[in-house]
Amino acid sequence: MPQPESLLLTDLYQLAMMQAYAEHGLTRLAVFEFFVRKLPAQRGFLMAAGLEQALDFLEGARFSEADRDALRRMGQFPDTFIDSLADFGFSGDVDAMAEGTVFFADEPILRVAAPLPEAQLMETRLVNLLHFATVIASKAARLVLAAPEKQLVDFGLRRAHGAEAGLLAARASYVAGFAGTATLAAALRFGIPAYGTMAHSFIQAHDDEAIAFEHFARSRPQGLVLLIDTYDTERAAVTVAQLAPRLAAAGIRIGGVRIDSGDLGTHARRVRAILDAHGLRDIVIFASGGVDEEVLARLTRDSVPIDGYGIGTSLATSSDAPALDCAYKLQEYDGIARRKRSEGKATWPGRKQVWRRYAADGSFAGDTIGLETEAPTGDPLLAPVLRRGRRVRPPPPLDAIRAHATDQLACLPVPLRRAEPAAYPVEVSCGLRALAEECDRRTGGSSRPAPPG
Amino acid sequence: MPQPESLLLTDLYQLAMMQAYAEHGLTRLAVFEFFVRKLPAQRGFLMAAGLEQALDFLEGARFSEADRDALRRMGQFPDTFIDSLADFGFSGDVDAMAEGTVFFADEPILRVAAPLPEAQLMETRLVNLLHFATVIASKAARLVLAAPEKQLVDFGLRRAHGAEAGLLAARASYVAGFAGTATLAAALRFGIPAYGTMAHSFIQAHDDEAIAFEHFARSRPQGLVLLIDTYDTERAAVTVAQLAPRLAAAGIRIGGVRIDSGDLGTHARRVRAILDAHGLRDIVIFASGGVDEEVLARLTRDSVPIDGYGIGTSLATSSDAPALDCAYKLQEYDGIARRKRSEGKATWPGRKQVWRRYAADGSFAGDTIGLETEAPTGDPLLAPVLRRGRRVRPPPPLDAIRAHATDQLACLPVPLRRAEPAAYPVEVSCGLRALAEECDRRTGGSSRPAPPG
Repeated sequence: MPQPESLLLTDLYQLAMMQAYAEHGLTRLAVFEFFVRKLPAQRGFLMAAGLEQALDFLEGARFSEADRDALRRMGQFPDTFIDSLADFGFSGDVDAMAEGTVFFADEPILRVAAPLPEAQLMETRLVNLLHFATVIASKAARLVLAAPEKQLVDFGLRRAHGAEAGLLAARASYVAGFAGTATLAAALRFGIPAYGTMAHSFIQAHDDEAIAFEHFARSRPQGLVLLIDTYDTERAAVTVAQLAPRLAAAGIRIGGVRIDSGDLGTHARRVRAILDAHGLRDIVIFASGGVDEEVLARLTRDSVPIDGYGIGTSLATSSDAPALDCAYKLQEYDGIARRKRSEGKATWPGRKQVWRRYAADGSFAGDTIGLETEAPTGDPLLAPVLRRGRRVRPPPPLDAIRAHATDQLACLPVPLRRAEPAAYPVEVSCGLRALAEECDRRTGGSSRPAPPG
Repeated sequence: MPQPESLLLTDLYQLAMMQAYAEHGLTRLAVFEFFVRKLPAQRGFLMAAGLEQALDFLEGARFSEADRDALRRMGQFPDTFIDSLADFGFSGDVDAMAEGTVFFADEPILRVAAPLPEAQLMETRLVNLLHFATVIASKAARLVLAAPEKQLVDFGLRRAHGAEAGLLAARASYVAGFAGTATLAAALRFGIPAYGTMAHSFIQAHDDEAIAFEHFARSRPQGLVLLIDTYDTERAAVTVAQLAPRLAAAGIRIGGVRIDSGDLGTHARRVRAILDAHGLRDIVIFASGGVDEEVLARLTRDSVPIDGYGIGTSLATSSDAPALDCAYKLQEYDGIARRKRSEGKATWPGRKQVWRRYAADGSFAGDTIGLETEAPTGDPLLAPVLRRGRRVRPPPPLDAIRAHATDQLACLPVPLRRAEPAAYPVEVSCGLRALAEECDRRTGGSSRPAPPG
């Protein structure tokens, strides 16, 4: 597997264009912006994430000798071009929304200003990193909103799309408010709380469920959660209740039980009653198995006695919306604003900023997308993060990013949280409309600019 | 980013269970099987993939010193356990279906027989690798069937879920019959044909589209495909037609044009007419932009003059079915068959094999899932791939895997190819039913075994 950091992890055409840019002298300053064209039908907002990984990528962008050798063996690029890659580095400026910021369609969340070949080459991996983290943070935010006060844990690694997806999903979901992850490598790498219970195989490998519980309890007494649905959930709850005093005598406290199948609400009520009848009110109930937004919303509405959830597939693949209609587009080259007019994919040209207005209670009231040089009402959301290829400040601690995300969700108008969300007001400034018209005239389009989207 | 090969890329509970297994002497031979419980509603078959990556993982499974140091710093595991990991390696046997084989619900595609702690620890990453590759190969197979004779190219890296997803999606889609990939690193790593055209930014950075075309053509004359939808698709087709003779005089042939937006069918017909009117019948038309199965099926049915497609998001995220309901379950421990009975998630116990029967024309007629020791009619699909932790033969060349997949699709009954597919007959043997009953009696369940599913 090539290292993710290899610059060959890109589309072939990026290198082809780099070569052509170099040969025809197109090396002036280019401005690209990353944005989402359209929100998925069932999403009223998105949450920006992945910025720190994107900046790591930009700061570390180099062609190794192995990369250059591989290109030589490929035989599709001239040696002079391949040799020139030895000196490659990203020297540009980047402005971006802070991770955890809520955003909407057409709003740039990251802007790159760099010599054209550099800004071009970064496209594929930048999009790959920002898109996925934003997909997951946005999905996790909806799950968090669906189960207020509940402890949500990422169980997604096995069905995440590969290793990196599992690691980055753990991080993005923690940013959005998850309590932690079952993925050990992600916990260690990002400093996220690690959670773990036990699997059915542990129970099955024993001839007796009670002995399996006791073995696990004696080996792993800290944060002990016993899995009770392997054979008969309620019978296993009774077994747990009978085991509790014996373990307590040995100084071992059963922290919780996990239910992974069947009607989670019905089982949870019965299990709660069994545990309570044995005076075990402090044993929490943890549920998993096909949990998604609607399950969380229903169980929450019904006040089912479940204290926490392990969420795997629906989180780590964002199964209802596994991709966003996003783009990284050239908006200015050599000081001149640019715009593509492709049907359904036209873009707003120029260097843009997004301003947000707030209601008296602090909730979001509306955004304006305008040119950087304009000054509409509201607070600007894009700020400098990279200058001349280097971070302007060290990466913020993950818990600070998470706190920002929590604040953002608290300011989210209620109609945007719904499964069939209302639209949020995003205005396009007059300056931006005028610039789009000017671009179209220059490139031979109609004098009435087609709006993007 | 930790290396994908780190054994810490797993769920915390796998290590917790390993520790408990070791402390309580549960280290006998365990048999686990990987299977899909239920096909997604819109899928009539699945295609097995990811085996070679899974075997690489098993053969290379080691705890590095850095891994063990990280566990020590974590403070959740006893030193004796962590020290014992220095000697860890996978010593088991694996039987599996060949990559590219078509399979159905409940059929094991991989079976692991190894000491319980080893077989347990492998679970998370094995599932992570087999699940994703199978998701993508299955999706790619449907795309290939929807557009017979067309050249399909993977354009998915930017919206794939991370780096590894992009690389492995390129491989899995090539296995299923794609012609190649735009992902340079995947092409180099796996020896897959690399395809690349140009981006809108290349056109936009020039003040004149015709000059942009000419610049690109002179720098990248081989396999030249010009992108014609940046401003006005038909006008750009005329520009291409006018440019062709001048380039031809310089020995440069325009191989194709790409359309990336709008109504692909309408534009393709108009562009074909323009090119043909200029005597440019050998310039092919390549289309991209939101292409999925139904688009392919419609354009194919309407005989639209498109010769190839670039497919990104719908392929690389398998957007209509981004995850499978799959599992890796303990089926036997210490010589005794095991079975979980969790509601809706019960499993068939024991070491299983899948036999396939064929109709006179070679097409698949029906499968039987039975115990390895049975011998129903049909050819067995699982074969030895690893013995005592080592491959029984070198990995097959990717093109041989691809040829097997092509053969499999040719034998697929027509009703299974549909968007609303028919069910394929999969029988469960009498021996397997009897064993399930016996397991249930032993673990205190009902005497009538609940069927899985």
